[in-house]
Amino acid sequence: MGEELFNVLTVQEAREKMASCLPADLRRITRKSLLDCLGMRLAHPVVAREDVPGFMRSTVDGYAVRAEDTFGASEGLPAFFTVTGEVRPGVAPERVIAPGEAMRVATGAMLPPGADAAVMVEYTEEAGEGCIEVLRPVGPGENILRPDEDIKAGEEVFPGNHLLRPQDIGYLASIGEVELDVFAPLRVGIISTGDELVPPEEKPRPGEVRDINSYTLYSMVRALGGAPVLYGVVRDDTGLLENRLREACRETDLVVISGGSSVGTRDHTAGCIAALGEPGLIFHGLAVRPGKPTLGGVVDGKPVFGLPGHPAAALISFDLLVSPLLKFGGYHSLSEGASPVKAVLARSLGSAPGREEYFRVKLRRDQGRIWADPILGKSGLLTPMVEADGIVRIPLESEGLAQEAEVDVYLFGTDYVL
Amino acid sequence: MGEELFNVLTVQEAREKMASCLPADLRRITRKSLLDCLGMRLAHPVVAREDVPGFMRSTVDGYAVRAEDTFGASEGLPAFFTVTGEVRPGVAPERVIAPGEAMRVATGAMLPPGADAAVMVEYTEEAGEGCIEVLRPVGPGENILRPDEDIKAGEEVFPGNHLLRPQDIGYLASIGEVELDVFAPLRVGIISTGDELVPPEEKPRPGEVRDINSYTLYSMVRALGGAPVLYGVVRDDTGLLENRLREACRETDLVVISGGSSVGTRDHTAGCIAALGEPGLIFHGLAVRPGKPTLGGVVDGKPVFGLPGHPAAALISFDLLVSPLLKFGGYHSLSEGASPVKAVLARSLGSAPGREEYFRVKLRRDQGRIWADPILGKSGLLTPMVEADGIVRIPLESEGLAQEAEVDVYLFGTDYVL
Repeated sequence: MGEELFNVLTVQEAREKMASCLPADLRRITRKSLLDCLGMRLAHPVVAREDVPGFMRSTVDGYAVRAEDTFGASEGLPAFFTVTGEVRPGVAPERVIAPGEAMRVATGAMLPPGADAAVMVEYTEEAGEGCIEVLRPVGPGENILRPDEDIKAGEEVFPGNHLLRPQDIGYLASIGEVELDVFAPLRVGIISTGDELVPPEEKPRPGEVRDINSYTLYSMVRALGGAPVLYGVVRDDTGLLENRLREACRETDLVVISGGSSVGTRDHTAGCIAALGEPGLIFHGLAVRPGKPTLGGVVDGKPVFGLPGHPAAALISFDLLVSPLLKFGGYHSLSEGASPVKAVLARSLGSAPGREEYFRVKLRRDQGRIWADPILGKSGLLTPMVEADGIVRIPLESEGLAQEAEVDVYLFGTDYVL
Repeated sequence: MGEELFNVLTVQEAREKMASCLPADLRRITRKSLLDCLGMRLAHPVVAREDVPGFMRSTVDGYAVRAEDTFGASEGLPAFFTVTGEVRPGVAPERVIAPGEAMRVATGAMLPPGADAAVMVEYTEEAGEGCIEVLRPVGPGENILRPDEDIKAGEEVFPGNHLLRPQDIGYLASIGEVELDVFAPLRVGIISTGDELVPPEEKPRPGEVRDINSYTLYSMVRALGGAPVLYGVVRDDTGLLENRLREACRETDLVVISGGSSVGTRDHTAGCIAALGEPGLIFHGLAVRPGKPTLGGVVDGKPVFGLPGHPAAALISFDLLVSPLLKFGGYHSLSEGASPVKAVLARSLGSAPGREEYFRVKLRRDQGRIWADPILGKSGLLTPMVEADGIVRIPLESEGLAQEAEVDVYLFGTDYVL
């Protein structure tokens, strides 16, 4: 216990200590076809190579004109135009608009040379064969887009590490970026330890339980854009664990070992991390509840984490320490990308100062507000983990939160969208 | 124009009219391995076949005892126990706890027969070889989980159509559900129309623009768990469009045609939908802005939508009419699964009664509130689509929203998480 007290770090300290032993970014860069980039992160900023729309374009169905020819037009005294033709979609009109002339344009059509505005069809009237009357004036530039009004060549359209959403994929198509450098998914090795664990397809005998963490962590890694690799259940044996850990370290970019709710197993795990390579074990215990029995180490430039055995605690430790690596390749930029749901706490929550505390909450809408109902269950239960919509954090120095306090609710594994 | 006025429906009317011509659920059911079910929806409710944990389990590191033997214990007058051994993880202890006896247990270990509580190690003291003193009483059931306390056999753990999140995958592992019936991804055929469109890998000539909607809609379908199939760009030609649409209807479950910002193209699309099968065109225009030039039809039991050509409008029409089909297989259960972000409107927004209006907003945190800044740009611009975090809806009957009004912000394509 003395050793643990000595090495218990705050989350911030643990991240900083790990970061000092890791490369600045764990991720490799890979080139992908645009359609395969959804949910991936850009390796570099994207700079537009062309203007969009690239030509003068009408934003209305109507007539391309020289704006000055409409000045003073009104319903009582309309301006008279000769219609010299129609601009077909996708075609560059060659005929110049001379004074008093108009060409019919649909939304999106290119303006003919000489025109500098478009009149909406609603403000025109047919005036005999090939002629219209315009009932309202338009200013230069009205109802049109300039060639670089949407996107300018040379402009940075997305910063590096931007997470690509559906609308971004379309946007990149518009500037012809059909192949992109993105970060390759981090390969995450997942090991479960514990003599009591059996694979989920087996029926546990009394005293045994199914391996849950491999399945939760596999899914969390996938949800965050990583590539999970399962290394199965390892019994409580230092030799076996060391071999499995060595294999995982060789084949993946990052390893999580969960389990070891008993002190003995935890010591096995700590010993294996320390034995495997330099610098070895970095911290042993986190000032967080749940999540205290979390270990962190670095083996030859690869992070290795020992997560608590309890599924809910493992999930929280994972979110605090592993998610940032999947999102950002390191512990920089942590404030980016977090977009919690704002809610009102439905009852007060007490907390001991000196550690961060995380409570699971369910969101409920009532009287025009979003309420966060804490889900308080016996420790050891799984059900609260699936009843919860997210977690609320009580900071290190706080003694708790009052009823009706405004809280930020973080949803598990929500990186894809937020 | 007269025809359009006649057929313009509200979103609710359009959904109901479509639903009346469609099967109750468009989705097929498929059986998948649990690890492949992340982000999919359950075809049926899941009922637990076993109790969890399935045996009496300690939730603390300490000693299994008969609670009554601790009654009256205190620091001044501790209760004395003989320690008869240790319960090893994963092993069912056979030795019965007799009065005055205790066995060492780790968190998660099975209680030996006779024991009905666990004492935390912190409230015990070593008292010579094989003996401990207990300094506080425990009640029956204290610090333990009953065999069915977490999950009861026969209990419904998830309803049908539940979207499987990472923690749900772990939960299903705990009850041995390693294969599940889920809804197969809906195959969505995507067609773009317009003489002005070129594929994104081509450099557009003056007057031409790149096909954006195929890319945005492909990504939206993927983000919502569907299986997109691209059918490319079709020029403004009824015969060509009819052939492509027939092919898409044969090969997929649902077809979206985007484009046709000009009235002529829209009429092509409407004509093709009407010509292809029964009942054909269902509605022609939506009381929504942007998104008015939206068409809907049913061809031999398959929905076909004509979406507006403008990318932002196409995205909104898609979210209103296609997203529900991907999420629920039909237009039932629409209130489920929507979990918008609550924000405060940073400026007032006007709207014409008689149509729903959607505004793009960017979220910003300031003074402890989340503000929704409307992004107002010229119609026709793409940039606001990627600057926005989501959209705010102004209902049919409303004339607008005041500054500082509380609004629900819906994020595009966020089904996976919310």
